[in-house]
Amino acid sequence: MPDILALSRLQRRFDALAAIGQDDAGGITRPFGSAAERAARQWFLREAEQAGFVTQIDPAGNLWAFLPGASQDIMAVGSHLDTVRNGGGYDGALGVILGLEALQTLQEEGYRPRNTLAVLALTGEEPNPFRLSTLGSRLLTGVLSWDRVLDVTDETGYSVRKALDQAGAPGLHDSAFAIGPLKGFLEPHIEQGPRLHEAGWPLGVVTTITGITRQMITLTGEQNHAGTTPYESRRDAVQGFAQAMMIFQQLSQRFADRAVGTVGYVRVFPNSINIIPSHVEFIVEWRSPDPDILAELTDSLWTQLQALSQRLHLSIRRHMILEQEPSFMDQDVQALLHAVMDEMGLPHPALVSWAGHDAAHLAKRVPTGMLFVRSNGYSHCPEESAEMEDIVLAAEVVRRVIIRWDLNAPGTSYTMFSKDVKEC
Amino acid sequence: MPDILALSRLQRRFDALAAIGQDDAGGITRPFGSAAERAARQWFLREAEQAGFVTQIDPAGNLWAFLPGASQDIMAVGSHLDTVRNGGGYDGALGVILGLEALQTLQEEGYRPRNTLAVLALTGEEPNPFRLSTLGSRLLTGVLSWDRVLDVTDETGYSVRKALDQAGAPGLHDSAFAIGPLKGFLEPHIEQGPRLHEAGWPLGVVTTITGITRQMITLTGEQNHAGTTPYESRRDAVQGFAQAMMIFQQLSQRFADRAVGTVGYVRVFPNSINIIPSHVEFIVEWRSPDPDILAELTDSLWTQLQALSQRLHLSIRRHMILEQEPSFMDQDVQALLHAVMDEMGLPHPALVSWAGHDAAHLAKRVPTGMLFVRSNGYSHCPEESAEMEDIVLAAEVVRRVIIRWDLNAPGTSYTMFSKDVKEC
Repeated sequence: MPDILALSRLQRRFDALAAIGQDDAGGITRPFGSAAERAARQWFLREAEQAGFVTQIDPAGNLWAFLPGASQDIMAVGSHLDTVRNGGGYDGALGVILGLEALQTLQEEGYRPRNTLAVLALTGEEPNPFRLSTLGSRLLTGVLSWDRVLDVTDETGYSVRKALDQAGAPGLHDSAFAIGPLKGFLEPHIEQGPRLHEAGWPLGVVTTITGITRQMITLTGEQNHAGTTPYESRRDAVQGFAQAMMIFQQLSQRFADRAVGTVGYVRVFPNSINIIPSHVEFIVEWRSPDPDILAELTDSLWTQLQALSQRLHLSIRRHMILEQEPSFMDQDVQALLHAVMDEMGLPHPALVSWAGHDAAHLAKRVPTGMLFVRSNGYSHCPEESAEMEDIVLAAEVVRRVIIRWDLNAPGTSYTMFSKDVKEC
Repeated sequence: MPDILALSRLQRRFDALAAIGQDDAGGITRPFGSAAERAARQWFLREAEQAGFVTQIDPAGNLWAFLPGASQDIMAVGSHLDTVRNGGGYDGALGVILGLEALQTLQEEGYRPRNTLAVLALTGEEPNPFRLSTLGSRLLTGVLSWDRVLDVTDETGYSVRKALDQAGAPGLHDSAFAIGPLKGFLEPHIEQGPRLHEAGWPLGVVTTITGITRQMITLTGEQNHAGTTPYESRRDAVQGFAQAMMIFQQLSQRFADRAVGTVGYVRVFPNSINIIPSHVEFIVEWRSPDPDILAELTDSLWTQLQALSQRLHLSIRRHMILEQEPSFMDQDVQALLHAVMDEMGLPHPALVSWAGHDAAHLAKRVPTGMLFVRSNGYSHCPEESAEMEDIVLAAEVVRRVIIRWDLNAPGTSYTMFSKDVKEC
């Protein structure tokens, strides 16, 4: 099945895209708004046009490559082109390149779609200097409104409005920009975790995209001289932080089978060798497919940290910076993925996605599914990788799913998608 | 004894100096190399010249105000004009202003010194953007050589050479700049800790300036995705840091009567919300007047942290960034301080200084003493303060000590100072 032409085209596209935004630390740095990210957009539009697709940029900067069908209803496959700082060449890139491959193969086979098929490259999925991740999908679905976004700037004063302009997005922000004709979305993506890798499965079907809560917590003590202040007079914020981490670790372990927690951001003030730290701010992230577990973890941590700070004579504050509910993939799309993989003789395990994705937002408005491709367990780092053999299999799954999707689209006798808008 | 004129002159000088380098956070920011620090230098030179002293700047930027005597041997009183970021108005300032006050009083009384008396304001005592604290005293005593200093720059590329030039220091760095005629140094300083305050004593005599070791420790794990990486696959540097702090806390408590430890500097990489931290660097500082305790603490912490890092599959490195031995104040100068305070009917407790001072370096080359003035227990922060009543008492102690010093200086029948250069 892996055909030599497809393989070399896929490989060429992965190589070309990975060459854009190479950084000094051996990875790829291509955040939304950067010159590298704009170069990746240009690359995508050129590839799509050379393959014979009609391209379009929507007001959110999302890139569309169309294979027009009898109907204007759109079924899209894709992901994103931007990366984290010092990231790898598969997160996001894989979904976009697979979309191109699947549609191009259909076109070459002379397939005449009923619906308009599209490859979709969504704007700014990763954390970026504007602190607006999944930007394109949130604007497309109306989860985020224009007025909360356009004048947001990075630290240098560069605004989202300017970044979108530079990306070639039409400035129609007041127009009735809407998800309108989009009738379904499929996001192929590397798993990022080690489950497929460890079980020896090339692909998996996503059931749920994890819920995520992020709280900024600030422990405040008292700045003083590191030599002359006796222990009993100290209110040392770093020592408080360390004890807070012990509580966090215990709680993480207690819920290890249902949630995952990380403290990735910590800042100490004034952060000087010979000064007892006055305060520490840190962000606690919890992820779980179960919203009740998320609530329990958040409450339990807060109760224990309040008691700790009282014991250590520190003060404590918290600020919820993200509260994203779990997102459930469309049942019919999941069934279709299982059926196709079964017909191809592939194992088709069902998995939770512990990472957030654009699909989480699109799932609230249109039937959405995710196909996981085995990766080496690394992600958001230069070591991230996936095998070309698995990617070729995934391209074939996507191709078959698109055909079934297209043939059984809404309006035909068999309705693949539930018509209700999901608000999960 | 507190005379109204002295009090108003002292108060005016504290107010004037504290007005230089006021920052937005209610404190004083006047690090070496800043415009504020240069303004403080100008202020000092003007005050000294208006009081009738001869001023001079040495190649290290140290400021001297002389009351010339029959001999060119110099006896100096002073401290420093620079401050930490967001510091207070007494650390350093007190020693310089007390020096001015004591010498000006002597001059007004018509005192004709045998030795040349001096007020000395030493360059860059506090941590500064060049990472060179006690700069002036280390250059003056030859502890630090010119070639290791002049081309050091801050983060913007501004060099020590340029900062010294801008401070008006003569660029005679290759000349035989030496401590030469300096025969004694007395540094009055706020205690910074709470001991005098709690015991109700206005002044104290320093016996030893604490030894200090500072080690930069780096714990390295593996950067990975915060959602998709199961706990058992994580090598989380922040969680390792928290456990390292538990070990540090236990060790601190075990040696609490003989040493004091602080972790004031911590940096997490890449410090991103959704990325498991790859490494954490932090600086562990220990202070003790006993060098054996310092060695034991350093060794014990390292042994335990190595075991911890092995257990957590982290790697660990350390880099000793400061290893400053305890410095013992001259016995004769201590005896003179005790005698003068006793004669004035003041308590004269002997204390260890838990903070480092320029006096620690000068003590290695010339007989040196320190007089502590009661403060409110706060230091290196805007709340730092001392009572004017105590400061007036200290000025009188300094005045009396200078006279005894001058009358009994080397070369007269009574030799105050042991002639051997101390290397402690």
